[in-house]
Amino acid sequence: MADEALLVLVARLQALCLERGLSVATAESCTGGLVAHLLTGVPGSSGYFRGGVVSYADDVKRLLLDVGEEVLAAHGAVSAQVARAMAIGVRGRLAVDVAVSVTGVAGPGGGSVAKPVGLTYVAVVDTAGVDVRRFTWSGDRAANKEASARAAIELLLARVEAMAPGSGE
Amino acid sequence: MADEALLVLVARLQALCLERGLSVATAESCTGGLVAHLLTGVPGSSGYFRGGVVSYADDVKRLLLDVGEEVLAAHGAVSAQVARAMAIGVRGRLAVDVAVSVTGVAGPGGGSVAKPVGLTYVAVVDTAGVDVRRFTWSGDRAANKEASARAAIELLLARVEAMAPGSGE
Repeated sequence: MADEALLVLVARLQALCLERGLSVATAESCTGGLVAHLLTGVPGSSGYFRGGVVSYADDVKRLLLDVGEEVLAAHGAVSAQVARAMAIGVRGRLAVDVAVSVTGVAGPGGGSVAKPVGLTYVAVVDTAGVDVRRFTWSGDRAANKEASARAAIELLLARVEAMAPGSGE
Repeated sequence: MADEALLVLVARLQALCLERGLSVATAESCTGGLVAHLLTGVPGSSGYFRGGVVSYADDVKRLLLDVGEEVLAAHGAVSAQVARAMAIGVRGRLAVDVAVSVTGVAGPGGGSVAKPVGLTYVAVVDTAGVDVRRFTWSGDRAANKEASARAAIELLLARVEAMAPGSGE
Protein backbone atom coordinates (compact mmCIF):
# COMPACT_ATOMS: atom_id res chain seq x y z
CA MET A 1 0.00 0.00 0.00
CA ALA A 2 2.66 2.47 1.02
CA ASP A 3 4.88 3.30 -1.90
CA GLU A 4 8.65 3.54 -1.65
CA ALA A 5 8.71 7.35 -1.73
CA LEU A 6 6.41 7.58 1.27
CA LEU A 7 8.48 5.06 3.23
CA VAL A 8 11.53 7.23 2.54
CA LEU A 9 9.72 10.22 4.07
CA VAL A 10 8.73 8.20 7.14
CA ALA A 11 12.28 6.92 7.61
CA ARG A 12 13.64 10.47 7.27
CA LEU A 13 11.11 11.76 9.81
CA GLN A 14 12.12 9.01 12.24
CA ALA A 15 15.85 9.64 11.80
CA LEU A 16 15.43 13.38 12.41
CA CYS A 17 13.20 12.88 15.47
CA LEU A 18 15.57 10.34 17.01
CA GLU A 19 18.56 12.58 16.32
CA ARG A 20 16.87 15.61 17.86
CA GLY A 21 15.07 13.85 20.69
CA LEU A 22 11.62 14.81 19.41
CA SER A 23 8.45 12.87 20.25
CA VAL A 24 5.42 12.61 17.96
CA ALA A 25 1.71 11.80 18.29
CA THR A 26 -1.21 11.57 15.88
CA ALA A 27 -4.93 12.40 15.98
CA GLU A 28 -6.81 10.84 13.08
CA SER A 29 -10.35 10.96 11.88
CA CYS A 30 -10.79 10.13 8.17
CA THR A 31 -7.44 8.32 7.88
CA GLY A 32 -8.64 5.95 10.59
CA GLY A 33 -5.21 4.98 11.94
CA LEU A 34 -3.34 4.89 8.64
CA VAL A 35 -0.86 7.62 9.61
CA ALA A 36 0.05 5.77 12.82
CA HIS A 37 0.26 2.49 10.89
CA LEU A 38 2.69 4.03 8.40
CA LEU A 39 4.85 5.63 11.10
CA THR A 40 5.06 2.33 12.99
CA GLY A 41 6.00 0.43 9.85
CA VAL A 42 9.64 1.41 10.31
CA PRO A 43 11.61 -0.58 12.93
CA GLY A 44 12.63 1.64 15.85
CA SER A 45 9.57 3.88 15.62
CA SER A 46 8.88 3.39 19.32
CA GLY A 47 11.91 5.63 19.91
CA TYR A 48 9.94 8.74 18.92
CA PHE A 49 6.29 7.83 18.19
CA ARG A 50 4.35 7.80 21.46
CA GLY A 51 0.95 6.96 20.06
CA GLY A 52 -2.25 8.43 18.78
CA VAL A 53 -5.99 8.63 18.85
CA VAL A 54 -8.38 7.52 16.14
CA SER A 55 -11.34 9.79 16.82
CA TYR A 56 -13.92 8.56 14.38
CA ALA A 57 -17.01 9.57 16.35
CA ASP A 58 -17.40 13.25 17.23
CA ASP A 59 -17.66 12.66 20.95
CA VAL A 60 -14.36 10.74 20.89
CA LYS A 61 -12.81 14.01 19.66
CA ARG A 62 -14.20 15.59 22.83
CA LEU A 63 -13.45 12.70 25.19
CA LEU A 64 -9.87 11.90 24.18
CA LEU A 65 -8.71 15.07 22.40
CA ASP A 66 -10.48 17.82 24.34
CA VAL A 67 -12.03 19.30 21.19
CA GLY A 68 -14.63 21.77 22.42
CA GLU A 69 -18.28 20.88 21.85
CA GLU A 70 -18.87 24.46 20.69
CA VAL A 71 -16.08 24.18 18.09
CA LEU A 72 -17.64 20.99 16.72
CA ALA A 73 -21.11 22.55 16.73
CA ALA A 74 -20.00 25.80 15.09
CA HIS A 75 -17.71 24.44 12.38
CA GLY A 76 -18.44 20.72 12.02
CA ALA A 77 -16.00 17.83 12.41
CA VAL A 78 -14.44 18.46 9.01
CA SER A 79 -13.07 21.97 9.50
CA ALA A 80 -9.81 23.83 10.00
CA GLN A 81 -10.88 24.66 13.54
CA VAL A 82 -11.43 21.01 14.52
CA ALA A 83 -8.20 19.88 12.84
CA ARG A 84 -6.40 22.53 14.87
CA ALA A 85 -8.10 21.50 18.12
CA MET A 86 -7.39 17.80 17.50
CA ALA A 87 -3.67 18.45 16.99
CA ILE A 88 -3.43 20.67 20.06
CA GLY A 89 -5.44 18.15 22.06
CA VAL A 90 -3.34 15.10 21.27
CA ARG A 91 -0.12 17.07 21.79
CA GLY A 92 -1.26 17.97 25.28
CA ARG A 93 -2.70 14.60 26.21
CA LEU A 94 0.34 12.63 25.06
CA ALA A 95 2.89 15.30 26.06
CA VAL A 96 4.78 15.24 22.76
CA ASP A 97 6.90 17.82 20.97
CA VAL A 98 5.08 17.64 17.64
CA ALA A 99 1.59 16.39 16.77
CA VAL A 100 -0.34 16.02 13.55
CA SER A 101 -4.07 15.65 12.95
CA VAL A 102 -6.31 14.77 10.01
CA THR A 103 -10.03 15.25 9.55
CA GLY A 104 -11.89 14.91 6.28
CA VAL A 105 -14.59 13.26 4.21
CA ALA A 106 -13.10 10.01 2.87
CA GLY A 107 -16.25 9.07 0.99
CA PRO A 108 -18.11 7.71 -0.79
CA GLY A 109 -20.86 8.92 1.59
CA GLY A 110 -20.84 11.88 3.97
CA GLY A 111 -20.25 14.61 1.42
CA SER A 112 -22.28 17.79 0.90
CA VAL A 113 -22.10 20.86 -1.31
CA ALA A 114 -20.24 22.78 1.37
CA LYS A 115 -18.07 19.81 2.37
CA PRO A 116 -17.64 17.48 -0.59
CA VAL A 117 -16.07 14.03 -0.54
CA GLY A 118 -12.30 14.49 -0.52
CA LEU A 119 -12.27 17.68 1.56
CA THR A 120 -9.56 17.22 4.19
CA TYR A 121 -7.79 19.36 6.78
CA VAL A 122 -4.37 18.50 8.17
CA ALA A 123 -2.88 20.33 11.15
CA VAL A 124 0.56 20.21 12.71
CA VAL A 125 1.50 21.78 16.04
CA ASP A 126 4.68 22.31 18.06
CA THR A 127 5.91 25.04 20.39
CA ALA A 128 6.13 27.43 17.41
CA GLY A 129 2.37 27.18 16.83
CA VAL A 130 -0.21 25.50 14.64
CA ASP A 131 -0.31 25.20 10.86
CA VAL A 132 -3.49 23.97 9.11
CA ARG A 133 -3.74 22.98 5.44
CA ARG A 134 -6.83 22.32 3.34
CA PHE A 135 -6.93 19.72 0.56
CA THR A 136 -9.58 18.40 -1.78
CA TRP A 137 -8.83 14.91 -3.08
CA SER A 138 -10.67 13.36 -5.98
CA GLY A 139 -10.01 9.65 -5.46
CA ASP A 140 -12.06 6.84 -3.98
CA ARG A 141 -12.12 6.10 -0.25
CA ALA A 142 -8.83 4.20 -0.21
CA ALA A 143 -7.05 6.78 -2.37
CA ASN A 144 -8.36 9.67 -0.27
CA LYS A 145 -7.17 8.00 2.94
CA GLU A 146 -3.73 7.48 1.44
CA ALA A 147 -3.50 11.03 0.06
CA SER A 148 -4.48 12.44 3.46
CA ALA A 149 -1.97 10.25 5.28
CA ARG A 150 0.76 11.31 2.88
CA ALA A 151 -0.11 14.99 3.38
CA ALA A 152 0.01 14.53 7.16
CA ILE A 153 3.42 12.88 7.02
CA GLU A 154 4.77 15.54 4.64
CA LEU A 155 3.53 18.37 6.86
CA LEU A 156 4.98 16.68 9.95
CA LEU A 157 8.34 16.16 8.26
CA ALA A 158 8.45 19.76 6.99
CA ARG A 159 7.78 21.03 10.51
CA VAL A 160 10.47 18.82 12.05
CA GLU A 161 12.95 19.85 9.35
CA ALA A 162 12.23 23.50 10.12
CA MET A 163 12.77 23.10 13.86
CA ALA A 164 16.11 24.10 15.25
CA PRO A 165 18.24 21.08 16.21
CA GLY A 166 17.92 20.30 19.90
CA SER A 167 14.61 22.12 20.28
CA GLY A 168 12.95 18.96 21.55
CA GLU A 169 14.75 19.20 24.88
CA MET B 1 -2.03 -4.97 1.72
CA ALA B 2 -5.30 -6.32 3.03
CA ASP B 3 -6.28 -9.42 1.13
CA GLU B 4 -9.78 -10.12 -0.10
CA ALA B 5 -10.53 -12.68 2.61
CA LEU B 6 -9.75 -10.17 5.35
CA LEU B 7 -11.92 -7.50 3.74
CA VAL B 8 -14.77 -10.02 3.68
CA LEU B 9 -14.37 -10.50 7.46
CA VAL B 10 -14.36 -6.74 8.07
CA ALA B 11 -17.45 -6.25 5.91
CA ARG B 12 -19.21 -9.08 7.76
CA LEU B 13 -18.27 -7.57 11.13
CA GLN B 14 -19.63 -4.20 10.01
CA ALA B 15 -22.89 -5.65 8.70
CA LEU B 16 -23.49 -7.57 11.95
CA CYS B 17 -22.69 -4.57 14.15
CA LEU B 18 -24.93 -2.25 12.14
CA GLU B 19 -27.74 -4.82 12.17
CA ARG B 20 -27.48 -5.33 15.93
CA GLY B 21 -26.69 -1.75 16.92
CA LEU B 22 -23.28 -2.64 18.35
CA SER B 23 -20.43 -0.14 18.70
CA VAL B 24 -16.74 -1.05 18.53
CA ALA B 25 -13.41 0.45 19.64
CA THR B 26 -9.77 -0.61 19.36
CA ALA B 27 -6.67 -0.34 21.55
CA GLU B 28 -3.50 -1.07 19.62
CA SER B 29 0.12 -1.32 20.53
CA CYS B 30 2.21 -3.42 18.09
CA THR B 31 -0.28 -3.12 15.22
CA GLY B 32 0.11 0.67 15.46
CA GLY B 33 -3.30 1.60 14.06
CA LEU B 34 -3.59 -1.11 11.42
CA VAL B 35 -6.72 -2.67 12.94
CA ALA B 36 -8.50 0.71 12.94
CA HIS B 37 -7.24 1.41 9.41
CA LEU B 38 -8.68 -1.90 8.18
CA LEU B 39 -12.04 -1.40 9.94
CA THR B 40 -12.36 2.10 8.45
CA GLY B 41 -11.52 0.86 4.97
CA VAL B 42 -15.14 -0.16 4.45
CA PRO B 43 -17.58 2.66 3.59
CA GLY B 44 -20.13 3.15 6.36
CA SER B 45 -17.74 2.13 9.15
CA SER B 46 -18.57 5.29 11.08
CA GLY B 47 -21.95 3.68 11.77
CA TYR B 48 -20.41 1.31 14.33
CA PHE B 49 -16.68 2.08 14.77
CA ARG B 50 -16.30 4.86 17.33
CA GLY B 51 -12.51 5.05 17.35
CA GLY B 52 -9.44 3.79 19.08
CA VAL B 53 -6.17 4.44 20.81
CA VAL B 54 -2.71 3.64 19.51
CA SER B 55 -0.81 3.24 22.75
CA TYR B 56 2.74 2.77 21.59
CA ALA B 57 4.48 4.16 24.68
CA ASP B 58 3.75 2.48 28.01
CA ASP B 59 2.57 5.64 29.69
CA VAL B 60 0.01 6.19 26.90
CA LYS B 61 -1.47 2.85 27.99
CA ARG B 62 -1.87 4.42 31.42
CA LEU B 63 -2.96 7.88 30.28
CA LEU B 64 -5.56 6.96 27.67
CA LEU B 65 -6.48 3.36 28.55
CA ASP B 66 -6.24 3.33 32.35
CA VAL B 67 -3.85 0.36 32.36
CA GLY B 68 -2.53 0.17 35.91
CA GLU B 69 1.12 1.03 36.46
CA GLU B 70 1.41 -2.04 38.70
CA VAL B 71 0.07 -4.30 35.93
CA LEU B 72 2.65 -2.91 33.50
CA ALA B 73 5.43 -3.25 36.07
CA ALA B 74 4.48 -6.78 37.10
CA HIS B 75 3.83 -8.33 33.70
CA GLY B 76 5.36 -6.02 31.07
CA ALA B 77 3.58 -4.31 28.16
CA VAL B 78 3.47 -7.54 26.14
CA SER B 79 1.38 -9.73 28.40
CA ALA B 80 -2.09 -11.22 28.68
CA GLN B 81 -2.76 -8.95 31.66
CA VAL B 82 -1.97 -5.75 29.74
CA ALA B 83 -3.94 -6.88 26.67
CA ARG B 84 -6.88 -7.47 28.97
CA ALA B 85 -6.52 -4.08 30.68
CA MET B 86 -6.17 -2.25 27.35
CA ALA B 87 -9.39 -3.79 26.00
CA ILE B 88 -11.31 -3.04 29.19
CA GLY B 89 -9.84 0.47 29.27
CA VAL B 90 -10.81 1.46 25.74
CA ARG B 91 -14.26 -0.08 26.14
CA GLY B 92 -14.86 2.11 29.16
CA ARG B 93 -13.31 5.29 27.80
CA LEU B 94 -15.16 5.13 24.48
CA ALA B 95 -18.34 3.61 25.91
CA VAL B 96 -18.66 0.88 23.30
CA ASP B 97 -20.32 -2.53 23.34
CA VAL B 98 -17.29 -4.50 22.16
CA ALA B 99 -13.58 -3.64 22.23
CA VAL B 100 -10.45 -5.37 20.99
CA SER B 101 -6.82 -4.83 21.95
CA VAL B 102 -3.45 -5.98 20.62
CA THR B 103 -0.03 -5.90 22.27
CA GLY B 104 3.04 -7.71 21.01
CA VAL B 105 6.62 -7.63 19.78
CA ALA B 106 6.48 -6.77 16.07
CA GLY B 107 10.25 -6.92 15.69
CA PRO B 108 12.92 -6.97 14.47
CA GLY B 109 14.11 -5.45 17.78
CA GLY B 110 12.56 -5.65 21.25
CA GLY B 111 12.53 -9.42 21.60
CA SER B 112 13.92 -11.49 24.48
CA VAL B 113 14.08 -15.15 25.47
CA ALA B 114 10.94 -14.82 27.56
CA LYS B 115 9.18 -12.56 25.03
CA PRO B 116 10.47 -13.29 21.54
CA VAL B 117 9.74 -11.30 18.40
CA GLY B 118 6.29 -12.30 17.18
CA LEU B 119 4.77 -12.90 20.63
CA THR B 120 1.37 -11.20 20.59
CA TYR B 121 -1.69 -11.05 22.83
CA VAL B 122 -5.14 -10.14 21.54
CA ALA B 123 -8.05 -9.45 23.89
CA VAL B 124 -11.73 -8.90 23.24
CA VAL B 125 -14.25 -7.67 25.79
CA ASP B 126 -18.00 -7.17 25.96
CA THR B 127 -20.60 -7.50 28.70
CA ALA B 128 -20.03 -11.27 28.75
CA GLY B 129 -16.41 -10.80 29.81
CA VAL B 130 -12.88 -10.79 28.46
CA ASP B 131 -11.16 -13.34 26.24
CA VAL B 132 -7.38 -13.20 25.70
CA ARG B 133 -5.45 -15.18 23.09
CA ARG B 134 -1.71 -15.68 22.73
CA PHE B 135 0.04 -16.00 19.37
CA THR B 136 3.62 -16.34 18.23
CA TRP B 137 4.18 -15.14 14.68
CA SER B 138 7.31 -15.91 12.71
CA GLY B 139 7.24 -13.24 10.02
CA ASP B 140 9.00 -9.92 9.61
CA ARG B 141 7.66 -6.68 11.12
CA ALA B 142 5.09 -6.06 8.39
CA ALA B 143 3.89 -9.68 8.36
CA ASN B 144 3.63 -9.77 12.15
CA LYS B 145 1.57 -6.56 12.19
CA GLU B 146 -0.76 -8.00 9.58
CA ALA B 147 -1.10 -11.37 11.32
CA SER B 148 -1.90 -9.61 14.61
CA ALA B 149 -4.46 -7.33 12.96
CA ARG B 150 -6.11 -10.31 11.31
CA ALA B 151 -6.26 -12.19 14.62
CA ALA B 152 -7.84 -9.14 16.29
CA ILE B 153 -10.49 -8.83 13.61
CA GLU B 154 -11.23 -12.58 13.70
CA LEU B 155 -11.60 -12.56 17.48
CA LEU B 156 -13.82 -9.48 17.32
CA LEU B 157 -16.02 -11.04 14.65
CA ALA B 158 -16.29 -14.33 16.55
CA ARG B 159 -17.40 -12.45 19.64
CA VAL B 160 -20.00 -10.41 17.76
CA GLU B 161 -21.28 -13.55 16.03
CA ALA B 162 -21.67 -15.25 19.42
CA MET B 163 -23.61 -12.34 20.93
CA ALA B 164 -27.36 -12.65 21.02
CA PRO B 165 -29.08 -10.42 18.48
CA GLY B 166 -30.16 -7.14 20.05
CA SER B 167 -27.74 -7.42 22.96
CA GLY B 168 -26.19 -4.09 22.04
CA GLU B 169 -29.17 -2.16 23.29
